[in-house]
Amino acid sequence: MANVIFRFDNGEPVKVSTAVGENLLETARKANVAIDAPCSGNGSCGKCRVKLLSGKLDSRQTRHISSEEYAEGWRLACCSHVAGDVEIMVPDIATAYKSRMKMADLSSPEEIRIFDESKERVEAAGLTMENNIRIVSVKMNPPSLEDTMPDIERLIRALQKETGIQHIRVPYSVLRRLPDVLRSSDFDVQCVISQSKSHVFVYEVAEKNEDLIVGGLAVDIGTTSVAAVVVDMTNGKILAKASTGNAQIRYGADVINRIIESTKPGGQKRLQDAIVSETLNPLIQQMCRAAGISPRHIFRLSVAGNSTMNHLLMGINADPLRMEPYIPAFFKTNSFYAPDIPLNVHPDAHIIMAPNIGSYVGGDITAGTLVSLLWNQPKFSLFIDLGTNGELVFGNSDFMMSCACSAGPAFEGGDISCGMRATDGAIEACTIDRETMEPTFHIIGDEGQKPVGLCGSGIIDVIAELFRCGMISPKGKFIREGKRIKHDAYGMGSYVLAFEEEAEGTKDVEITEVDIDNFIRAKGAIFSAIRTMLKTLDFDISMIEQVYVAGGIGSGINMQNAINIGMFPDIPIEYYHYIGNSSLSGAYAMLLSTKAERKVYELAKNMTYLELSTEPGYMDEFVACCFLPHTDSSLFPSVSQK
Amino acid sequence: MANVIFRFDNGEPVKVSTAVGENLLETARKANVAIDAPCSGNGSCGKCRVKLLSGKLDSRQTRHISSEEYAEGWRLACCSHVAGDVEIMVPDIATAYKSRMKMADLSSPEEIRIFDESKERVEAAGLTMENNIRIVSVKMNPPSLEDTMPDIERLIRALQKETGIQHIRVPYSVLRRLPDVLRSSDFDVQCVISQSKSHVFVYEVAEKNEDLIVGGLAVDIGTTSVAAVVVDMTNGKILAKASTGNAQIRYGADVINRIIESTKPGGQKRLQDAIVSETLNPLIQQMCRAAGISPRHIFRLSVAGNSTMNHLLMGINADPLRMEPYIPAFFKTNSFYAPDIPLNVHPDAHIIMAPNIGSYVGGDITAGTLVSLLWNQPKFSLFIDLGTNGELVFGNSDFMMSCACSAGPAFEGGDISCGMRATDGAIEACTIDRETMEPTFHIIGDEGQKPVGLCGSGIIDVIAELFRCGMISPKGKFIREGKRIKHDAYGMGSYVLAFEEEAEGTKDVEITEVDIDNFIRAKGAIFSAIRTMLKTLDFDISMIEQVYVAGGIGSGINMQNAINIGMFPDIPIEYYHYIGNSSLSGAYAMLLSTKAERKVYELAKNMTYLELSTEPGYMDEFVACCFLPHTDSSLFPSVSQK
Repeated sequence: MANVIFRFDNGEPVKVSTAVGENLLETARKANVAIDAPCSGNGSCGKCRVKLLSGKLDSRQTRHISSEEYAEGWRLACCSHVAGDVEIMVPDIATAYKSRMKMADLSSPEEIRIFDESKERVEAAGLTMENNIRIVSVKMNPPSLEDTMPDIERLIRALQKETGIQHIRVPYSVLRRLPDVLRSSDFDVQCVISQSKSHVFVYEVAEKNEDLIVGGLAVDIGTTSVAAVVVDMTNGKILAKASTGNAQIRYGADVINRIIESTKPGGQKRLQDAIVSETLNPLIQQMCRAAGISPRHIFRLSVAGNSTMNHLLMGINADPLRMEPYIPAFFKTNSFYAPDIPLNVHPDAHIIMAPNIGSYVGGDITAGTLVSLLWNQPKFSLFIDLGTNGELVFGNSDFMMSCACSAGPAFEGGDISCGMRATDGAIEACTIDRETMEPTFHIIGDEGQKPVGLCGSGIIDVIAELFRCGMISPKGKFIREGKRIKHDAYGMGSYVLAFEEEAEGTKDVEITEVDIDNFIRAKGAIFSAIRTMLKTLDFDISMIEQVYVAGGIGSGINMQNAINIGMFPDIPIEYYHYIGNSSLSGAYAMLLSTKAERKVYELAKNMTYLELSTEPGYMDEFVACCFLPHTDSSLFPSVSQK
Repeated sequence: MANVIFRFDNGEPVKVSTAVGENLLETARKANVAIDAPCSGNGSCGKCRVKLLSGKLDSRQTRHISSEEYAEGWRLACCSHVAGDVEIMVPDIATAYKSRMKMADLSSPEEIRIFDESKERVEAAGLTMENNIRIVSVKMNPPSLEDTMPDIERLIRALQKETGIQHIRVPYSVLRRLPDVLRSSDFDVQCVISQSKSHVFVYEVAEKNEDLIVGGLAVDIGTTSVAAVVVDMTNGKILAKASTGNAQIRYGADVINRIIESTKPGGQKRLQDAIVSETLNPLIQQMCRAAGISPRHIFRLSVAGNSTMNHLLMGINADPLRMEPYIPAFFKTNSFYAPDIPLNVHPDAHIIMAPNIGSYVGGDITAGTLVSLLWNQPKFSLFIDLGTNGELVFGNSDFMMSCACSAGPAFEGGDISCGMRATDGAIEACTIDRETMEPTFHIIGDEGQKPVGLCGSGIIDVIAELFRCGMISPKGKFIREGKRIKHDAYGMGSYVLAFEEEAEGTKDVEITEVDIDNFIRAKGAIFSAIRTMLKTLDFDISMIEQVYVAGGIGSGINMQNAINIGMFPDIPIEYYHYIGNSSLSGAYAMLLSTKAERKVYELAKNMTYLELSTEPGYMDEFVACCFLPHTDSSLFPSVSQK
């Protein structure tokens, strides 16, 4: 056995014993030390950089570590094995996800505006924010020797009179507290009930004067990030909003790596714990505190997430999702409750789930499609959700087709050497001077914030600008020289946006040819998916009349630049609309509106699912797309003209 | 602080620190040392005898401890306070309940015979043992690229075809395991379902070849004892039977003391834990092991217990039961599931509860009434359940009235100096020679078992025989002298059944005038309740045509002796039937027979409840009954003739 000590910039060191020969990333995971490893430990992403302080590590040098860095002690944890007692520094850049784990209010004015617009769109389509949960006041005669009816009977009769409905269900959670509440309130109470045509369910009985809020929770469970709102079910008012990282990220950045991790012994439980205990329950607690309500007063939840997230949330074997013939355990379920996993809210809280329609088109897309309203108009519309995967829906009020492509995590900064999510320090927009080749950029964060890396919208801008300035070829190779253009020992070129001394971290903020290549493949996946899907429908790109772009890529996305690099179809820029986190907006609508909930099930039922991976021609299309903007430049006439 | 050491005949000593001045019984409870204290620590029962080995105790001497005993170190734990470091011996007689806690097979041939007879009676009345749980085999086509239906949809469609019912509910517990079971069984499975007219609920999906038993559990929760059977729901076969003590007993022997204890801080939880975690879950585990099935394969439960037991089981405030106007939280509930408390069985197992009809007439009586069949015949019948309380039902196929009287724990050996429950060492039957005044008795247990104490049926016999032999007066005072008749310093007489050297314990097995007085009050409570209830109906005792006696008093009860002491009405002996544990038989019938379940609800609805405590004349009637056999000897003509 060997002793391993993990040290951090902040916080107590973690000590653990492990077998000699054990992989360092695995050792860190067992010790619950979070090291970012989006590629799940195969050495390809280079994110799991750690520094050897003392002791013995068997490591191989990779292209992600320069010789100088190697000499300084930098290693990739996934490519290192414990060879004896060892002391390891886990730097901030590696624990970056920890800061992403921090709760953040979803409070940028832009985000709120987009969210509110989505809500208005849904309501304008006739999906009024009405649901079956409400508060009723009930006053009973106190019992006497002449009137010895038991408490539950007394309540039921009063509710029958109040609602006109015979079948009143009083669950254990209410019965248990009933004698106390009735007596402390002198038999004058308020009840939270859900009421259907023939049934009433009693969620809560409270004293008449208690300031009782009927809370609900809508949550978007993304592969990378989780965003949620706590609402008042009676009026739709948002009481709290927050977002945080999905703690599953330490088991892999994409769904495939998560599924693989979940098939290891105890993996299903580990991944469920990561999302339930480490992510959702703390998020709920923090939001309820902010909203000033008890988590017990969250009476209903609505969840939108992709198929893998839904399976892992429920602790259900997700392996069949990734293996031919790609079969999910469920598309939808109407029998899922908070205590099942368990979420710390009201013990009878029902969890509504936006339905999956295929292994790789999940509830985030069906919920998002609701919000896009493409189902409610004659115009042929394209809905693009840029998450860790890219998903598309094309159609109108007559038909809908959907597909998913594995774009990889590049849109959220994964697989990019200086990539990061759209948080403080991220370059989110950039222009480059064609002459001086000097960049001008906008950084997320307070004034004076130095650049840390590049988020998705920033990468689009940088690549588009490098291409516009003739600095890179259509294949993404550097073709000009300059002080910001470097070449390493292997001949790989890169463009430095901020030299080490100008930046926040320990190295230059740059974009390399490998990064550009990764990103070109990601954008190629999106565009080829659009082309292939349209082809199966005998549609041409020019027939698209609306495009709705959703996802965590950020409200700062420059649609024209996305067109210029061949990511989005070359159609008039005014056809494009950024609709923000449509998965969360959709979950919100399903939570509050019974009509919206039904509509999502209906949409899911009517949506055709196209399995791209078995579609002939898709691979050729993809290869043709791995150029800037495309091998067939006639597809991007406006770009060629510039 | 003081150090307290509890020592035992067997087992490791228990050490605990406590404040000087702390009550010794409380200290023992906190240290989880079980000391029998049926009166809940008010010094009246004298059961909590412990021996001071060394150190300091502030104790008062009570009538339960003689001067010699006091000198030897004997104390009542409830009347002692820790005065410094102290070492205490907890003798076997005080920990007797521990042995009662031991699981015992309900396997005496007599008990089985009575149980089987009850079952036959119920079936003969048309309540066939049919319920809605069954196993169905389902074979599905495995999925393919052409048939990508999700698992749950595939199962639901197959079950729709199999059952002809559209609405199939697959709960989380099944969905969670579905992908694994379907794939390991090649999509050829068996399902445990419950099926109503319009709904199917899926409890379990298992591989086709698994030896799947559909288990059910019926349990009688008595104030003193708990008895249960595990059955095969598909054929009614009993797979295991067991009984054990109710671990709540350390918080008081009767329901009133339990309720009082439950109102103390944390009391509700303590009493719920005692019955759920300490009594039922171990019982279930042991029975399932004996039956060779997994507790997860218990799919439905049926519980019969008195109103207080039902409330404490559910962790519901029971205080209103004992306070005017005596209001239970519920008579019945149709929304109570195993995880609510939680019982370790199938997570979707429904708990059927025999309905209460009043604060002191509970599910044990409604279930017992079912089994008595008095509702199914024109003869006027009396049903008597002799538990820790006495409950009565009188009626026939046209009407039913019930009432409860607080007989106290005497029938189960409580409030009797040498009283004990009907377990090994209990004198269960006795005759006394009129001339020599020597006793002959039958002791429960193996040959050679020495007497430890007296159980209910033994006490009836001893008192009846003492009275028949002219040894005691109608008031229960000794009026003859003899070597077995003693008088203590206070002049209190007693009859020694076995001198210390003949007995198992540390003192004589005897019956004192205080015991006889206690028992006379208990039997008086029963008889006066019968008289009062009949009076309110304008009935006379001679009009009773059948008597069904149930309860833990034991199959050895001598009905004639019970008549002779004025406990039961003086009607022909052949009218009497002992029907054993009718509460358990009733719970069994409700579990297995949907018709029986409905019948019990119907019986409960149609039964009138008479609140004796507010009935004029009841107290006078009670006082008149506190004689042997009665102040009005004309009520017992056959006794006077002897």
